[in-house]
Amino acid sequence: MPATPPVLVDIKFNPEGVARVLKTAFADRGSINLADPADRTRDLRDVEYALLWKPDADLFKRAPNLKVIFSGGAGVDHIIGMDGLPEIPIVRFVDRSLTTRMSEWVVMQCLMHLRGQYTHDSHQRQREWAKLIAPEAAEVTVGVMGLGILGQDAVAKLRVMGFNVIGWSRSRKQIDGVETFDASEFDSFLARTDILVGLLPLTPETSGFYDAGLFAKLRRNGALGRPVFINAGRGKSQVEADIVSAIRDGTLGGASLDVFEAEPLASDNPLWELQNVFITPHDAAVSEENALFRHVETQIARFERGEPLQFVVDRAAGY
Amino acid sequence: MPATPPVLVDIKFNPEGVARVLKTAFADRGSINLADPADRTRDLRDVEYALLWKPDADLFKRAPNLKVIFSGGAGVDHIIGMDGLPEIPIVRFVDRSLTTRMSEWVVMQCLMHLRGQYTHDSHQRQREWAKLIAPEAAEVTVGVMGLGILGQDAVAKLRVMGFNVIGWSRSRKQIDGVETFDASEFDSFLARTDILVGLLPLTPETSGFYDAGLFAKLRRNGALGRPVFINAGRGKSQVEADIVSAIRDGTLGGASLDVFEAEPLASDNPLWELQNVFITPHDAAVSEENALFRHVETQIARFERGEPLQFVVDRAAGY
Repeated sequence: MPATPPVLVDIKFNPEGVARVLKTAFADRGSINLADPADRTRDLRDVEYALLWKPDADLFKRAPNLKVIFSGGAGVDHIIGMDGLPEIPIVRFVDRSLTTRMSEWVVMQCLMHLRGQYTHDSHQRQREWAKLIAPEAAEVTVGVMGLGILGQDAVAKLRVMGFNVIGWSRSRKQIDGVETFDASEFDSFLARTDILVGLLPLTPETSGFYDAGLFAKLRRNGALGRPVFINAGRGKSQVEADIVSAIRDGTLGGASLDVFEAEPLASDNPLWELQNVFITPHDAAVSEENALFRHVETQIARFERGEPLQFVVDRAAGY
Repeated sequence: MPATPPVLVDIKFNPEGVARVLKTAFADRGSINLADPADRTRDLRDVEYALLWKPDADLFKRAPNLKVIFSGGAGVDHIIGMDGLPEIPIVRFVDRSLTTRMSEWVVMQCLMHLRGQYTHDSHQRQREWAKLIAPEAAEVTVGVMGLGILGQDAVAKLRVMGFNVIGWSRSRKQIDGVETFDASEFDSFLARTDILVGLLPLTPETSGFYDAGLFAKLRRNGALGRPVFINAGRGKSQVEADIVSAIRDGTLGGASLDVFEAEPLASDNPLWELQNVFITPHDAAVSEENALFRHVETQIARFERGEPLQFVVDRAAGY
């Protein structure tokens, strides 16, 4: 083992992609890739930095001298409840590209609901020429839940597209030109919202959070007729049985889901075929390995120069 | 007939919508709605202002004393070639809402191609969980043809979404931060373009303009693999047989079409079922009657105060 211990990498992404990009990352200290059979049984006792996405359950036992944990994504719910998690900083992945991609997905889903893309698509498959008169974006209020880096970027872009945008976060955030709500004003926020965009982290408080009771509080008779639910946060925050009922009984007029209670979504799940529901397979904002490894290198360099780490998780809040 | 002659209205839109909104428009002088059987045979000789969309062929013979013609849409190709068209100003319809809706459609189509919505949708219908790794918007160059009010708004919004955007117009336009091309640089413009967005008016020069030769000059091997053609201008600017061949032989990787050589698009047209082609029935930006009538009222008031009319068509250019 060299004087500077290698970075431990245990990220359950596409193994070929990780292996390929890892070759040129961490040039000063190398890496141990637990997905590589040659590295599987390596001694991890000297390792100081670990980059993790859904790591092995025994990882913290095998690597007892970690100084910093890096998450392979924006969320940390895959680590935060693990047995033996040491009391060291956990750094989230924040990246311009990840943020941009998430906003692309959010804006596209909002536009598809605004413009009746599901109906247009059905007409196209039936070779039927049928004009739809859609409201314009300014007549529709998008309520964004979660006003971190991803939420604020989505808010800014939705506004440029003309939507009326409001925002909610546990503690109130100030955003120029956007009406924001905090935990105590949750019902007023929902009553104003035609399209709910969920970008919340998974914590004990947000587990099972998007449920029938919440859907029933969204604005009815807005310009879209019925409210729409969009989730690109975490699947375990949504009650899928309630989404299915709400679509079927008209409480919701549509949905866009990138995340699910259990992934991959089972082929017999009723969500696949619901009216006006768009499904994507948790690829709204995929961590790109090059950007991820550069981010970890940058943070390690800061740490070793004695500068504060960025994007450190608040362990009490859980994100 | 009152002292102030009524406004002549001959717009082949949805007749119920026009009739309903017309009741409260032009309060100072009233209107003659040629779609109304009671008005069909009215004497039109005193009429000074006509609001037209695909008017009757004998209209200019029946109304020989017009002072200004207003188009019911952004385009004037439905009027410009008509027999007996008098040498008076023709005013296009320009409206914030029309512009916003067109940009909603353009941005949505660009995002759907960027994010592989056609493939995601196929997977959803097959209940198949298959992540797609899409390039981010910054890796894709959208080339916008036509840099009038609609084109410039689309350019600005595509840039905010992260796309690399370039622009083309017959005579060069200056747009801050956007590389623009003029007629002499057409091939260089195409060679840089991954997604071509057509917002050109229909003139003799743009008739049959988007053809096999043009598609073959678009950038190949960009981040999307194959180029995409998007048209929300006029259907007669595109050669549909060439679009069909280009999609089938891989010259084009996809298309989004809101306009067609003949509308409504016939149910046996092969465009309906082409791979990665999105069809909408010329409803990307529908003229909203309230906004249209307000615009005409505003322009008549300007004209009668002796102020210059806005949005007057250059008859030599044809738009």
